[in-house]
Amino acid sequence: MSNLKGKHILSVNQFDAGMIKQIFHVADQMAPYAHRKKRTRVLDGAILGNLFFEPSTRTRVSFGTAFNLLGGHVRETAGMANSALSKGESLYDTARVLSSYSDVVAMRHPDSGSVAEFAEGSRVPVINGGDGANEHPTQALLDLYTIEKELHSHGDKIDGMHIAMIGDLKYGRTVHSLSKLLSLYKNIRFTLIAPKELAMPASVMDIIDKAGHQFTIREKLEGNLDADICYQTRIQEERFSSQQEANLYRGKFRLNQQIYTQHFQSKTVIMHPLPRDSRADANELDNDLNLNPNLAIFRQADNGVLVRMALFALTLGVENIISDYDCPVQWYSRKGEQ
Amino acid sequence: MSNLKGKHILSVNQFDAGMIKQIFHVADQMAPYAHRKKRTRVLDGAILGNLFFEPSTRTRVSFGTAFNLLGGHVRETAGMANSALSKGESLYDTARVLSSYSDVVAMRHPDSGSVAEFAEGSRVPVINGGDGANEHPTQALLDLYTIEKELHSHGDKIDGMHIAMIGDLKYGRTVHSLSKLLSLYKNIRFTLIAPKELAMPASVMDIIDKAGHQFTIREKLEGNLDADICYQTRIQEERFSSQQEANLYRGKFRLNQQIYTQHFQSKTVIMHPLPRDSRADANELDNDLNLNPNLAIFRQADNGVLVRMALFALTLGVENIISDYDCPVQWYSRKGEQ
Amino acid sequence: MSNLKGKHILSVNQFDAGMIKQIFHVADQMAPYAHRKKRTRVLDGAILGNLFFEPSTRTRVSFGTAFNLLGGHVRETAGMANSALSKGESLYDTARVLSSYSDVVAMRHPDSGSVAEFAEGSRVPVINGGDGANEHPTQALLDLYTIEKELHSHGDKIDGMHIAMIGDLKYGRTVHSLSKLLSLYKNIRFTLIAPKELAMPASVMDIIDKAGHQFTIREKLEGNLDADICYQTRIQEERFSSQQEANLYRGKFRLNQQIYTQHFQSKTVIMHPLPRDSRADANELDNDLNLNPNLAIFRQADNGVLVRMALFALTLGVENIISDYDCPVQWYSRKGEQ
Repeated sequence: MSNLKGKHILSVNQFDAGMIKQIFHVADQMAPYAHRKKRTRVLDGAILGNLFFEPSTRTRVSFGTAFNLLGGHVRETAGMANSALSKGESLYDTARVLSSYSDVVAMRHPDSGSVAEFAEGSRVPVINGGDGANEHPTQALLDLYTIEKELHSHGDKIDGMHIAMIGDLKYGRTVHSLSKLLSLYKNIRFTLIAPKELAMPASVMDIIDKAGHQFTIREKLEGNLDADICYQTRIQEERFSSQQEANLYRGKFRLNQQIYTQHFQSKTVIMHPLPRDSRADANELDNDLNLNPNLAIFRQADNGVLVRMALFALTLGVENIISDYDCPVQWYSRKGEQ
Repeated sequence: MSNLKGKHILSVNQFDAGMIKQIFHVADQMAPYAHRKKRTRVLDGAILGNLFFEPSTRTRVSFGTAFNLLGGHVRETAGMANSALSKGESLYDTARVLSSYSDVVAMRHPDSGSVAEFAEGSRVPVINGGDGANEHPTQALLDLYTIEKELHSHGDKIDGMHIAMIGDLKYGRTVHSLSKLLSLYKNIRFTLIAPKELAMPASVMDIIDKAGHQFTIREKLEGNLDADICYQTRIQEERFSSQQEANLYRGKFRLNQQIYTQHFQSKTVIMHPLPRDSRADANELDNDLNLNPNLAIFRQADNGVLVRMALFALTLGVENIISDYDCPVQWYSRKGEQ
Repeated sequence: MSNLKGKHILSVNQFDAGMIKQIFHVADQMAPYAHRKKRTRVLDGAILGNLFFEPSTRTRVSFGTAFNLLGGHVRETAGMANSALSKGESLYDTARVLSSYSDVVAMRHPDSGSVAEFAEGSRVPVINGGDGANEHPTQALLDLYTIEKELHSHGDKIDGMHIAMIGDLKYGRTVHSLSKLLSLYKNIRFTLIAPKELAMPASVMDIIDKAGHQFTIREKLEGNLDADICYQTRIQEERFSSQQEANLYRGKFRLNQQIYTQHFQSKTVIMHPLPRDSRADANELDNDLNLNPNLAIFRQADNGVLVRMALFALTLGVENIISDYDCPVQWYSRKGEQ
């Protein structure tokens, strides 16, 4: 089995099937802690450097909460405006200094490759929390983990599944990363539904193809799709060459209960990387899907905490001793009931 | 006795006399912890989501400190500029996601009603830390708690007291909320002193009246007031229709030691929601009152920590087991001497 | 021996030789905790108010980490834009309120004298984390501590050493403070190398002179310097009266491996307050010095954590009981190997 102790988590490309299995196995063990059935002090005294040089409230808080749930402290920064980086400091220097203030770093930065550059100077494991258009591996892992759990609850599995990806497949970082991770599995059918201008890039298509998966490309949502998973991503209208072009697609990639019933199976799981735009004219998931039990978007967010707890446990080498530090939860919580 | 376990704290309107009594009883028990006579680990491992979508240093830190004093972790956000809310995410979605990262939420937001809307999507108790011009219930509770403690030290009580409210009674959220809470008591005399343009709104007057209290309305501070409490609020000059109008009132609603001696009893307690504007031309409390032992403004701030500790203990259902987790304080502190 | 329990740390001027000795003795004891050989819970339950009214990521995180390493909680604020200070609140009021939310305060503020003013209203010890152009005593202490440790590893000591200070000696706060601390030692040789427009101020020269130290003043880096320490500070070109003037000095105060070899001993320790500007045209330390074992700049940053831990321990009076609260480190760390 792979060993992530002391390793950086920078890219989905670094994972093999064994690592994924190990991460998900540890994530499964984290559920009782996140659901407040019990708590652990395994990382009591440890310090997370939660370095968000680009703001992202939910990802930042998710990493911080994951570390607190393991018993650790969190030191953090949110935003770059006044950091030394803006005064010409190299990422190497920043890393040498800031990494010495913590036991593990979670980092987001607007520039592609910046987190890997930081990792070279870091004295502690670095987990990439998103480096611009490049990578956001914990999002990809939580998406894959959600797919596995949702399918498992239907008695299904990832090998052989049918996934529909809808929306902006060109700029949507999450669908690229997820597609790469899915290349570790077998016989998957992809239905890729996007405006021509926002189609899945050739580089990703190539990965899907080389993995031996099948794919179908469509420019709109039509017909009956026996998909197991429907993964929706936001279309930002400024991606189109003109507003006229954008208008052609407005509302065509939206999903609501009526459209869902028309095109999908009654068990198709609905996913989205969040946040979703809930304004009326958004090309997104409608609020009327909130009552649909297959809407997995909030379970995705919850799973993000489990996956991040697992990555902290593995990079810090405590995955096998977590329950040695168990304590009871003495306060009232309904989390276990959810 | 009322039970706040698992409940949201959204508005002063939700309290009855029994709840107030319970909250203050628990707040009393918090004093030895805040004063560092001892400490408790009752919420060790618990996580507060301290979500300030509008900045407010003192309220945010007060909530965070209250939670730390009970032994818990704090994850927080300060400011909305880059949050998903600004990209069209609904408060329901924000709540579903962020509330799952904590055991209880304290939230401030610039929009009226936003905290209640968030609470509908939240999986954990939400405490309103201020939603625009609407509500700030913990401020009202700490004001009322301060009044009770200050009067008690004089051998007096809230029933039958005389309170003078001075300054901007129209836009001052704190005096409205406090007036509502005082409707739970008996035979109070209100002296309401405000420029005509900034008089107490009819809706609040109505509540005072229906509670059977007496009130006197004045447009300036004059004569001898046998008030037990003098509650001052800031007048912001931009509230007037013209600078000319504002100039008419400049300095008229200011309070300094000389004015205090002229109009109040030697035991009248001076309160203010803070911050006070200490610049020379402000319509506020003068710094020369700092030596007056009846100046209760910093005791108000201290009481805010006790009241917030009490609300965390009650909503998380640990109010009866706090001392089971007592530990000694091993570091030097003069807090107990204050 | 001097006693810092309950004291503010505001200025380098408050230290005598005994205090310095005590602080460094405690800092030495902190190394095993910072290096994760063991951990301590001596400040478990204590709260640091980390009040940064001016942003400074590394100093803020360094203080926070130092407190976490002793087991305590950190509440913090970063930036002043929305604080009550901007609405006319006095520093006295801010201090009375915010200091009651913590057991010790670390504070940075853009205005000279502001931290001392805050300290007057504070109920707990205040450590100055930089007040504008005035003071930054923890930087001076970590610089001095680094000098002592680096010299000690060569079998040398501060008395009798030769220190070269290079760059902006006029506006560089760190070289002023360090020079003041060095006045507590004997027979030091200073070589002060700066553009004429950025020479060391007479007031500091006077302190060096009165301490009986020797000094040489130069306008450029030339000849062989048998310096034990080379302390470099950044030259900001906007300090010159004209760009033409600035151009005269461009690159003249830069240090790289070739220049180092030409002018210094093979054991000369290279220091810098950080951050350094790593852009090609900066008057700073070149990245090619990263491989030079005498480059102590990152050890300086590490020592900052030890010195801040020592100041927290001393002001909170726990310096002699730290190891009573020792625990093992249960997670993987390579910090001890550095």
